[in-house]
Amino acid sequence: MAVRRISANLALDHAVASRQAAGESIVHLGFGEARLPVFPGLVDRLVSGAGRNSYGPVPGSAGALRAVAGYFDRRRLPTRPEQVVLAPGSKALLVALQLAVPGDVLLPAPCWVTYAPQAVLAGKDVFTVPIPAECGGVPDPDALREAVRAARAAGANPRIVVLTAPDNPTGTTATPDLIRRICAVAEAEDLLLVSDEIYRDLVHDPDFEYLSPAEVAPDRTVVVTGLSKSLALGGWRIGVMRFPGTEDGERMRADVASVASEVWSTLAGPMQEVVEYAFDEPAELVARRDADARLHGALARAVHDIAAKAGALVRPPTGGFYVYPDFEPLRDRLAATGVVDGDSLQERLLERHGVAVLAGGHFGDDPRGLRFRAATSVLYGDRPELQQEAMEATDPTAVPHVARALDVVELAFTALGATPGGRP
Amino acid sequence: MAVRRISANLALDHAVASRQAAGESIVHLGFGEARLPVFPGLVDRLVSGAGRNSYGPVPGSAGALRAVAGYFDRRRLPTRPEQVVLAPGSKALLVALQLAVPGDVLLPAPCWVTYAPQAVLAGKDVFTVPIPAECGGVPDPDALREAVRAARAAGANPRIVVLTAPDNPTGTTATPDLIRRICAVAEAEDLLLVSDEIYRDLVHDPDFEYLSPAEVAPDRTVVVTGLSKSLALGGWRIGVMRFPGTEDGERMRADVASVASEVWSTLAGPMQEVVEYAFDEPAELVARRDADARLHGALARAVHDIAAKAGALVRPPTGGFYVYPDFEPLRDRLAATGVVDGDSLQERLLERHGVAVLAGGHFGDDPRGLRFRAATSVLYGDRPELQQEAMEATDPTAVPHVARALDVVELAFTALGATPGGRP
Repeated sequence: MAVRRISANLALDHAVASRQAAGESIVHLGFGEARLPVFPGLVDRLVSGAGRNSYGPVPGSAGALRAVAGYFDRRRLPTRPEQVVLAPGSKALLVALQLAVPGDVLLPAPCWVTYAPQAVLAGKDVFTVPIPAECGGVPDPDALREAVRAARAAGANPRIVVLTAPDNPTGTTATPDLIRRICAVAEAEDLLLVSDEIYRDLVHDPDFEYLSPAEVAPDRTVVVTGLSKSLALGGWRIGVMRFPGTEDGERMRADVASVASEVWSTLAGPMQEVVEYAFDEPAELVARRDADARLHGALARAVHDIAAKAGALVRPPTGGFYVYPDFEPLRDRLAATGVVDGDSLQERLLERHGVAVLAGGHFGDDPRGLRFRAATSVLYGDRPELQQEAMEATDPTAVPHVARALDVVELAFTALGATPGGRP
Repeated sequence: MAVRRISANLALDHAVASRQAAGESIVHLGFGEARLPVFPGLVDRLVSGAGRNSYGPVPGSAGALRAVAGYFDRRRLPTRPEQVVLAPGSKALLVALQLAVPGDVLLPAPCWVTYAPQAVLAGKDVFTVPIPAECGGVPDPDALREAVRAARAAGANPRIVVLTAPDNPTGTTATPDLIRRICAVAEAEDLLLVSDEIYRDLVHDPDFEYLSPAEVAPDRTVVVTGLSKSLALGGWRIGVMRFPGTEDGERMRADVASVASEVWSTLAGPMQEVVEYAFDEPAELVARRDADARLHGALARAVHDIAAKAGALVRPPTGGFYVYPDFEPLRDRLAATGVVDGDSLQERLLERHGVAVLAGGHFGDDPRGLRFRAATSVLYGDRPELQQEAMEATDPTAVPHVARALDVVELAFTALGATPGGRP
């Protein structure tokens, strides 16, 4: 077990908390949480499910599995309830899959902080592959093929690729063309694709052409999702996994259910009632989710524009609530002020400008890069009233508390590009 | 990953379900569930906690950890909140501990079905040690010492012993003397004790002298418990773990929290509000729990008496809701009818007598033994109204639906002792 460490997020949270305790005002863009109130219909279901105190079937109740199957059906992924397993969060399912499926793991760099430690926990080796210029969440297809071959030549057994679309940390979404190219590599090199689609329902533009690798390579793609991001239910811990409708898929699902039966037994009964409701996608819930996606888009674009204006390279965000600027164009100017890598950039933004972000190295990116992730959803405010105000505004960036926070971000990013000693 | 299998419980459930579907009436003593309604005060807390949709601290919220610390304080185990981690069930904590602590595992035989697969999942070797004649849930101390030395001589590294008091499957509770002897072996051989006390609040006799190994060997005992059994909340998935108040304990807790952060993030927010309430042990909840313990005792004793009268050796149950008869005295008579081991005994009871039990082999016991676990809590009935009736009765064994089920059990067990071809 080589995992012992305080996670990067937690360490940042501690640093922020101690500065706040000392009276500083911090704009905390470090924490990847949807930061919106619970939709009332979800609370109703939690309440009506309270009587579910029996252990149910490990994968989930019939009603909940049926609802999830319907959710995937509506996304061009025909699904039987027997292809689904529920869990207290998508993390538990990802770990169970890692434990159940042999072979080493290939990850895009950067990617979500949790994939690599999970692979290590399951005793696997991890190989990282750079993302293409157009978007993150997927490795560059050519680099992926090379990485697989190099790893095999070195005696490793790379078999699993994790993809994220929309992506954390870049806030971008792989295009259909890119997904098809990744699937072609997976076919050629006999790789299992794990498609993390937890931000899928938060694509900003409703007309975006979303393609799941499970549509292109259905026999070799496992899809994982949950309600933490799309319905702001991180604290409720609800994840689901969909396995291929093949014999291999059945076997993987049985193996994951077997791990589940030893680790978490089943998703809590009241939460399964929430699953039934949420994955059925009633109109009132979809309306709220779509409005949230628009809100996330508005703030992510605002922070993107600030970063771009300050001189950073930054992919335009298309889903979720992240922006991933690269201040490489300002390397010389930053170096003159002592900022030479991701960590010193993160530190500078927090210590001098009161803006908390997470440096790229924490996501498996090159630690020398002048890159970081900004989670833009925290801009809505830390109280439900403030969040509600942001949700209801026609232009959320103009809501006073949001605008003030954006001003702090703008000052901070602009200061990075200022001549040393000069003023922004 | 050598875990792939349908768990014994699930396989039995399937067999029972298919017989029930075919119109048979089955008394299902196979499933270890408290089988009682949710206490209304718990539902109130789930509801008031619904707004907790943020990710909180991985180990648990300050209020919840404080409540759990108080719970242990009241059990002569002085505890700081910083010694506690919450999880969606005690299973998750046990697995995390196995992943976090190096060394192989020693288990009493028989013991709960889940400990061994969890150890395998964590890449450990498992050594089983027989229980003493007086009670289960602990290995015989002398046999434990020998097993440790033999395992070390064979090159293994046995470091962890799991104890269960009250015990699943035997329904018995280790005496203080036995606990002290086990702790002495643990000291002498430098072993970590994992004390599973999930049935602790279901000791039948309020005057029973309960001793936790954490009182005797505080520096080398981790305690795990939860609400699944004592408050009939299996389907809500709430577990807690208490680490020693030492530097070693702190390290273990940090490692388990690190695994937690990659596997389940944190216990669901609404459930943490339930933890705050339940572990504070308000009087109304304690009254209900104590009444449940008396009910469990009455039914476990009834089934014990039936088994003893039928000729089985059976330890008198003292906690929880299990009985573990041994039909060895009837081996010859049973052999003449084709029943020669635990599995054939289990099959006979189900197929000929409509009584579902789980053979000892599933608990790591010698599969040749004529032993099985009967979970007596299912006798209360499968509907809340029936359960309520059993809870409210002065003599629950006399409640009509309970008495009828006990009659079926009596017929079944007595038939095992009848001369082949004759009548019971």
